[in-house]
Amino acid sequence: MNQKAVFYHAGCPVCVSAEQEVAAALDRNRYTVETVHLGETKNRLREAEEAGVVSVPALVINGQAYHINYGAPLSALK
Amino acid sequence: MNQKAVFYHAGCPVCVSAEQEVAAALDRNRYTVETVHLGETKNRLREAEEAGVVSVPALVINGQAYHINYGAPLSALK
Repeated sequence: MNQKAVFYHAGCPVCVSAEQEVAAALDRNRYTVETVHLGETKNRLREAEEAGVVSVPALVINGQAYHINYGAPLSALK
Repeated sequence: MNQKAVFYHAGCPVCVSAEQEVAAALDRNRYTVETVHLGETKNRLREAEEAGVVSVPALVINGQAYHINYGAPLSALK
């Protein structure tokens, strides 16, 4: 079964770059990658916070949060 | 031809986690991934800096630097 990766972003330029270069580079044969725009789907904010996400863009892989550069704090999206 | 990705680290716990979960998740069919320990190979520091790396762990994909969480500043490795 594929491992799960969630890419959280807010449409910011830093987010777009991370999505196109990092999230897009993940191996789709091993990972199911979901992309979540936290500015548009605020009901996913809590789940992101619980995974340890404090800013976007961030990748959560197997429940672990990896912030990729720095676009915006999660608090700005609430 | 495969695209190039370089994972820069310094053996720190944050680095190890990023290597095992993010660098390891890259699609090896599309990317050639090189792992560089900047604490042990200081002659690669300049190339990392020129790519925009300011802290480790960081992934440079197609010449663009993506810092993954925060382990140590590059200045601490000189």
